[in-house]
Amino acid sequence: MIGVVTTMGGIDLPALYRPVFAEQAPELDLRTPDEVTDPAEVAFVFTFRPPPEAFAGMVNLRAVFSAGAGTDAILACPSLPEGVPVHRVEDPDQALQMAGHAAFHVHWHHRNMARYVAQQARGEWSRVVSGLSPTHKRVGVLGFGHMGRAIAKGLMALGYPVAGYSRRALDPPEPGVRHFHGEGLDAFLDRTDILVNVLPLTDRTRGLIDAGFLRRLPEGAALIHMGRGGQVVESDLIGALDAGRLSGASLDVFETEPLPPDHPLWRHPGVLCTPHVASIPEPAFVVRAIRTRMLSLP
Amino acid sequence: MIGVVTTMGGIDLPALYRPVFAEQAPELDLRTPDEVTDPAEVAFVFTFRPPPEAFAGMVNLRAVFSAGAGTDAILACPSLPEGVPVHRVEDPDQALQMAGHAAFHVHWHHRNMARYVAQQARGEWSRVVSGLSPTHKRVGVLGFGHMGRAIAKGLMALGYPVAGYSRRALDPPEPGVRHFHGEGLDAFLDRTDILVNVLPLTDRTRGLIDAGFLRRLPEGAALIHMGRGGQVVESDLIGALDAGRLSGASLDVFETEPLPPDHPLWRHPGVLCTPHVASIPEPAFVVRAIRTRMLSLP
Repeated sequence: MIGVVTTMGGIDLPALYRPVFAEQAPELDLRTPDEVTDPAEVAFVFTFRPPPEAFAGMVNLRAVFSAGAGTDAILACPSLPEGVPVHRVEDPDQALQMAGHAAFHVHWHHRNMARYVAQQARGEWSRVVSGLSPTHKRVGVLGFGHMGRAIAKGLMALGYPVAGYSRRALDPPEPGVRHFHGEGLDAFLDRTDILVNVLPLTDRTRGLIDAGFLRRLPEGAALIHMGRGGQVVESDLIGALDAGRLSGASLDVFETEPLPPDHPLWRHPGVLCTPHVASIPEPAFVVRAIRTRMLSLP
Repeated sequence: MIGVVTTMGGIDLPALYRPVFAEQAPELDLRTPDEVTDPAEVAFVFTFRPPPEAFAGMVNLRAVFSAGAGTDAILACPSLPEGVPVHRVEDPDQALQMAGHAAFHVHWHHRNMARYVAQQARGEWSRVVSGLSPTHKRVGVLGFGHMGRAIAKGLMALGYPVAGYSRRALDPPEPGVRHFHGEGLDAFLDRTDILVNVLPLTDRTRGLIDAGFLRRLPEGAALIHMGRGGQVVESDLIGALDAGRLSGASLDVFETEPLPPDHPLWRHPGVLCTPHVASIPEPAFVVRAIRTRMLSLP
């Protein structure tokens, strides 16, 4: 069964995945696009941001698998044949990576870690001795799928009061999490000192986090953005930080990736940037999931 | 009922605690040592590192409360009257603070955060794209009291494989944690990629973490030291880092505190220093615990 793998941003997917396919899924013949002579032979594609003509001629395509957490770029690809299922690999391991990333950045903002890193460079011993209890910071998880749930569970185990927001009511509910949905967004933002965004990119969420949105958070709130680059209006975010309405932000995704070297977000005080590494699927988990699904097709 | 409060390292305990005692425990009359005219009137002392004569003349002392997680300095005080109970305030909130600190530093070392902070200063986008799964790092919690348990629970919720070590067998066991005790220290260290130390300071643990001890960890392991300053032989730690046997360390406690500005640990690559802030008791929780105990005395 022939599958095609494409490159993904800065990650050489073929180099990363071929050895794992060869070892764990020998039934699947993974090729790069230039190694395919007849597109009609291709049964599946493994990709993240496919070029426009990626799926041209694949008349027998059975499935597409996303190499990342989102499927937005695949669904927007003009050559994607109609009716072919696009799978997000709902990898519990990747959700745990997201939880670790969120816990780190919540601690970074709540526990003054930027200050301590700066003090270390100066050899300075100076302590913040009050307000360290996690009960002082109400965390809000915006977007409450399997990643939101894993993040909430991790933060609750560290003692933070956690709420979640999603468009629809949560089913099943997550024990210990105060859940908001639909029209409850204002109430959710109003009680959120640290906002963790893990929304998918859709027409509804593009540009969602703008000046007006940020104003609905309490004065001094912090933003941890680990959703998609198109969701935060970066100039509005910088404005809210400069005005002191937000106390800080951690950003893992950006309007433009890679973030250009001269971008003001790199050097803005109160901002911690990471280069889209909140989570990266583990090849072993992903290949196992693809193999299981492809071999179970009738 | 008269109590005496002393200062604590860099923290002005009287200033921090008097308003909370006044509001939450009006039955208790909290005084500084110079406000006491007759030491025989003192019913309790609230302290951390009492001066040698701190308890002189307190013939009616009923209890001593530690303002920090350890009681070592109180028990070593020569004027402590025999038979007076010394209480650690077993504050569940403080244990959660420790768990957050541990989760942050585990992520710091596992997920290349020192690299990303350095890259941010240069505006450089460069990613580590493999090995991000928490399943790749086996964490070991050395010292498994109520703080060790909270740390283990937090890290397990983030997906890390966690083991614990304590001198005696664990009762009750902690679900999900592989526990080692007694002679099992070697086996525990051998499977530990990131060691989190929360041992109390005793004659057995003073100087415990020396060159020989660090050699029993796997090549490339990291140390998160949040126990007591006397436990790690700092020159041996620097040697293990320089030799590349350890990949990094996070240190919250030191042989000398405050850590002197010219100390090599401030500037050692791979070391992240914090000024003894892994946890600091919340006055509200502490005062509630002291009040409950003092008012229940016969």
